[in-house]
Amino acid sequence: MPSSPIRKLAPLAREAKKEGVKVYHLNIGQPDLPTPQKALDALKNVDRKTLEYSPSEGYPGLREKLVGYYKKFNVDVTPDEIIVTCGGSEAILLGLLSCLDPDDELIMVEPGYANYISFAKTAHIKVKTVTSRIEDGFALPPVEAFEEAIGPKTKAILLCNPSNPTGYVYTPEELQKIKEIVVKHDLFLFSDEVYREFRYNGQPYVSALSLGIPEHVIMIDSVSKRYSECGIRIGMLVTHNKEVHDTVMKFCQARLSPPLLGQIVAEASIEGTEQYAKECFDEYKARRDFFIKGLNEIPGVYSPMPGGAFYTVASLPVEDAEDFCRWLLTDFRLNGETVMMAPAAGFYSTPGLGKNQVRMAYVLKEEDLAQALKVLRAALATYKDRH
Amino acid sequence: MPSSPIRKLAPLAREAKKEGVKVYHLNIGQPDLPTPQKALDALKNVDRKTLEYSPSEGYPGLREKLVGYYKKFNVDVTPDEIIVTCGGSEAILLGLLSCLDPDDELIMVEPGYANYISFAKTAHIKVKTVTSRIEDGFALPPVEAFEEAIGPKTKAILLCNPSNPTGYVYTPEELQKIKEIVVKHDLFLFSDEVYREFRYNGQPYVSALSLGIPEHVIMIDSVSKRYSECGIRIGMLVTHNKEVHDTVMKFCQARLSPPLLGQIVAEASIEGTEQYAKECFDEYKARRDFFIKGLNEIPGVYSPMPGGAFYTVASLPVEDAEDFCRWLLTDFRLNGETVMMAPAAGFYSTPGLGKNQVRMAYVLKEEDLAQALKVLRAALATYKDRH
Repeated sequence: MPSSPIRKLAPLAREAKKEGVKVYHLNIGQPDLPTPQKALDALKNVDRKTLEYSPSEGYPGLREKLVGYYKKFNVDVTPDEIIVTCGGSEAILLGLLSCLDPDDELIMVEPGYANYISFAKTAHIKVKTVTSRIEDGFALPPVEAFEEAIGPKTKAILLCNPSNPTGYVYTPEELQKIKEIVVKHDLFLFSDEVYREFRYNGQPYVSALSLGIPEHVIMIDSVSKRYSECGIRIGMLVTHNKEVHDTVMKFCQARLSPPLLGQIVAEASIEGTEQYAKECFDEYKARRDFFIKGLNEIPGVYSPMPGGAFYTVASLPVEDAEDFCRWLLTDFRLNGETVMMAPAAGFYSTPGLGKNQVRMAYVLKEEDLAQALKVLRAALATYKDRH
Repeated sequence: MPSSPIRKLAPLAREAKKEGVKVYHLNIGQPDLPTPQKALDALKNVDRKTLEYSPSEGYPGLREKLVGYYKKFNVDVTPDEIIVTCGGSEAILLGLLSCLDPDDELIMVEPGYANYISFAKTAHIKVKTVTSRIEDGFALPPVEAFEEAIGPKTKAILLCNPSNPTGYVYTPEELQKIKEIVVKHDLFLFSDEVYREFRYNGQPYVSALSLGIPEHVIMIDSVSKRYSECGIRIGMLVTHNKEVHDTVMKFCQARLSPPLLGQIVAEASIEGTEQYAKECFDEYKARRDFFIKGLNEIPGVYSPMPGGAFYTVASLPVEDAEDFCRWLLTDFRLNGETVMMAPAAGFYSTPGLGKNQVRMAYVLKEEDLAQALKVLRAALATYKDRH
C-alpha cells in the first residue's frame, strides 16, 4: 500500500504548527467556503431519539432528491440506481471490487487521483496508465495510447472529469473516443464526476451516463466538494447496470450502512441551494484566475490553465519536488509561514514522471492564496541557492 | 461475495411493510434504546461553518477520551494507538487488509459474525472455522480444533468477545489458551470487543490487549451498540503494534477521513454517561432473561442462555430455517404482524451447519419481544402443519 501523496507529509505539517508556524494547505481539496446554512440547520433540527442504522443503500429521501439533481444535468436515473456510500472513496473501492477480479487491469490517465491507485491495490487490481502531458494542458492522450495499454486482462477505464489533479475537462469529442474504446473492448467505464459543477470555460457537461452505453458505466459522485461538506462522508455510486448494482449492494450490506447524519446534511443541501452554488462557482473561478496567473509569474514555475475542478498540476524549477515539499515544512519559513503541497510523483504510476511537479488545490480565499504564492516564490529562491 | 444473512431478506420485509404488516425485527442488532441526550445535544451545538475533513486517524479529542474509557477496563493505550474508523466494520476490513496477504488464512469460530466472512473475501483471505456447538452453549472449541485448523498459511485468529451471534463470553482460561496458540504459531489476534459492557453473569472482562502479547493484538471497537448510535458509523482499531498501525493508516489516508459528525456525537457519549450505561445494561439483561425463557417455552425451540451481547442463536423445529424466515415475511401474519430473523446458516462456513438455526437480536422492548414470541409460536405451529 503506497502512502497518500496528499496526506503523507501531514505529520511534518503538524510539527510545524506545533512550533507556531502558519501552514497554507495547498495539498488538500478542503474548501474553506461555508457549508450551506440550510444543511447546517438540518443538523440542529434532527429530532431523532435514536441515531440508528440507515438502509445499506441510503435513505430513499436522499436518493429521490439526487434523481432531481441529476435531471438538471440531463442524466436520467431512478432512485434504485443510486447507492449512497461513505464518500466517493467508498464508491470507487466497492465499484472496483464488484467489477474486477484480482489481477484484472484498470486503465487510467496519469497524472490521476492518487487514491485511485490505492483503491486498485486494495482490490489487487493492476493499474495501467496512459500519460497526459503538461505541455498539452493534460488533454486526453491519443486513442492509440489506450489501444496500446489494453490487453486481455483489461476490464475497465477510469476517468475523472473534470479531473483531479489536473483540472482538465474532457471535451464531448474526447468522451466519444472513450465510448468507442469501451464498446470495442467491452469494458466498464468508471466516471468520477464529483467536480461536474466546476467548469469555468463554459464547456458542455457530458456525463458518462449520457453516452448511450448504460450497461458499461459506473458513475461516481460525492456531495463533499460542491457543498463544502467533505467531512460528512457522503458519496454515491450510480449505474444502470443491475448486476453491478446488486453486487455493490452485497458489499454495502456487509458494511451495514452509510453515515446517517451525513445523509441528513446531504439531503438538505440538494434543493434550494442554487444561489449558493453560483456563489461558490464564481468564487472558485476568481481564485483560479488569480492563482494560476500568480503561479506562472514565479520564475521557473509553469501551470496550464485548468478548465475545471479546483486543482492544478504545476512544474517547479526543482529536481525533486518531494524533497522541496518536505523542506518547506521542516525548514523554510517566511515570517513564520510556509506552504504545504502534494508532490505530484504520487499521482503518476510511471516511475520518474512528475518528479518536478506538485499538485495544488486553490480552495483557500484569495488573500491566503496571495500569501501562499509569496511564500512559494521566496522558498524557491532560497531552495535554489541551497542546492 | 455472499449476501448478508442479516440484511438479505430486507426487500421481503419492505414488501410486507408496504402491505401494512408490522414486522418485528429480530434480525438486526439495531437497539431501540435512545442515544444519550448529551450526545444528541452535541449535535445541536455544532457551531462549525464548514463541515470539513477530519484527520485520517480521527480527532485527537475523541481518541484522548477513549484512552480514559479503556483505562476503566484496565486497558492502557495511548491516543496514538487508536485509529477512528467508519464503524467497527471498516476497522475489521482495514485490519485484515493490513495484516494478511491474499490466500493467507484466518481462523474464526463458527457460528461467527457473518460479515467477517464478507470482509475476509473482500481481502481475498481464506477463512477456516472451528465449530462451537449449541449443545455446549457455544463455548470455545477445544485447543485441538484450533491446532488442526492451523497450517502454514494461517496468519491470524479472529475472536468476537462477547460473541455476536451467540452471546458467549470467553472465560479468562479460554483466552489464556488462545494466547498460547497465538504465541506458539506467531499469529495475529483480532479481538472484536464491541459488546464488552454487556456481560450479564458478572464475568470478568479480559481484553485481548491485556493478555501480555501487545505485538499480536488488534482490538476492534465501536460506539454503535453501547450508546445506541449505530447510524453514526464510528468504530476504532486499537493496537500496540506500530507496524500494523502505520499500515492501517495508509488505507485510512486513502479513504481520507472517518465521519466528522459521528465523531462529535461519539466524543460527547463517552464521559458522564455512566448512569445511561447502567440503565442500558439493566434493560438488556431483563430483555435477555425474558426473551430466552420465552423462546425455550415454545415447543421444539432451544436457545442456550447467552452470557453477553444481545444476540442468541437458537434451533427451531424446522428443516430449513431460511425457508421459514422467508415464509414469515411473504406469507405468515398473526393479526397483521410477523417476525424477521436472520437464518443462522450464513453465520457458519461449514456447509450444512446451522440449517435449523436462526440468529435473533433481543434489542426490542419487552412488550415487542413478547409479541414477537407469540407470532413465532403461532408461525411454527402453522408452518409445521403446512410441511
